[in-house]
Amino acid sequence: MKFCSNCGTALSRRIPQGDNRERFVCDQCDTIHYQNPRVITGCLVTWEDRVLLCKRAIDPRSGLWTLPAGFLENGETTQQGAVRETWEEARARVNAGDLYTVFNLPHISQIYMFYRAELLDGSFAAGHETTEAALFSEADIPWDELAFPVIEKTLELFFRDRPRDQFPVHTHDIIIKRR
Amino acid sequence: MKFCSNCGTALSRRIPQGDNRERFVCDQCDTIHYQNPRVITGCLVTWEDRVLLCKRAIDPRSGLWTLPAGFLENGETTQQGAVRETWEEARARVNAGDLYTVFNLPHISQIYMFYRAELLDGSFAAGHETTEAALFSEADIPWDELAFPVIEKTLELFFRDRPRDQFPVHTHDIIIKRR
Repeated sequence: MKFCSNCGTALSRRIPQGDNRERFVCDQCDTIHYQNPRVITGCLVTWEDRVLLCKRAIDPRSGLWTLPAGFLENGETTQQGAVRETWEEARARVNAGDLYTVFNLPHISQIYMFYRAELLDGSFAAGHETTEAALFSEADIPWDELAFPVIEKTLELFFRDRPRDQFPVHTHDIIIKRR
Repeated sequence: MKFCSNCGTALSRRIPQGDNRERFVCDQCDTIHYQNPRVITGCLVTWEDRVLLCKRAIDPRSGLWTLPAGFLENGETTQQGAVRETWEEARARVNAGDLYTVFNLPHISQIYMFYRAELLDGSFAAGHETTEAALFSEADIPWDELAFPVIEKTLELFFRDRPRDQFPVHTHDIIIKRR
């Protein structure tokens, strides 16, 4: 961030009056440009006893398996965003259920939220950003080829909770120290 | 958003290639300026059988009662943000517990998250953005003077859950149609 998005003037970096941390500030029009974490929302989609995974077509982690998920857009709920991403990435129509996992990734200022969901009719396909979509039983999950820790953790929790058919919301912080 | 924060050029509004919705785009340096929902995080703070509320010193809803909460900052977890806001707004040190409520407010592109927390030593005071902080028993909650629907709903759920001492995560969408 170098220029004011309101008036185009070069920005300063300082602590605004009444604040306690540095912000990008415009000395011309006095706009303070806050930067905040972003939310990524997705679905843990099941069909009978299997889970839907997508092989990533793009970096980061191209070629590794993920759950369909992406950035929440303005104007939608986290569940709506999860359903939309599931359609965009896996061409899957789902019946979305409850919120299941919430992850904080403060080192990259992201929050992940996954909903449990069921395929409506068993059909799916590779969407954009995906080279392949497939259903995996627990025994076949490619644990060594998962794209992100939040994916591994969500799947672990799901297979742990499933025998009891109880799926409370799980929250977890993924803390990675920056060098 | 009128100017590119990367190069200062006036922005266009169009659907980028491979996307499906309008974004602010810089035709000079090709930066796409995404806009995403923001997260507000706070604490439902208790001390013995009472709940800590703050009377707002600022708009919106100046003079009405709220739970201490504010925008999540980059680099912190939602629980850390909730604890920080509780200190800033109510000068209260807390032992933060589990995530309790999650609200989607898509009409203003916000997500609220409240954690349950206990006062460490019973002390608190009006912080900035607050004219008065006070502990309220269930019978004394100023239901007609609460600042936001998310506050009312979180308190309702808490007093409903408390007799059983079971506090599962509750999710709720607050849908308000824009005129």
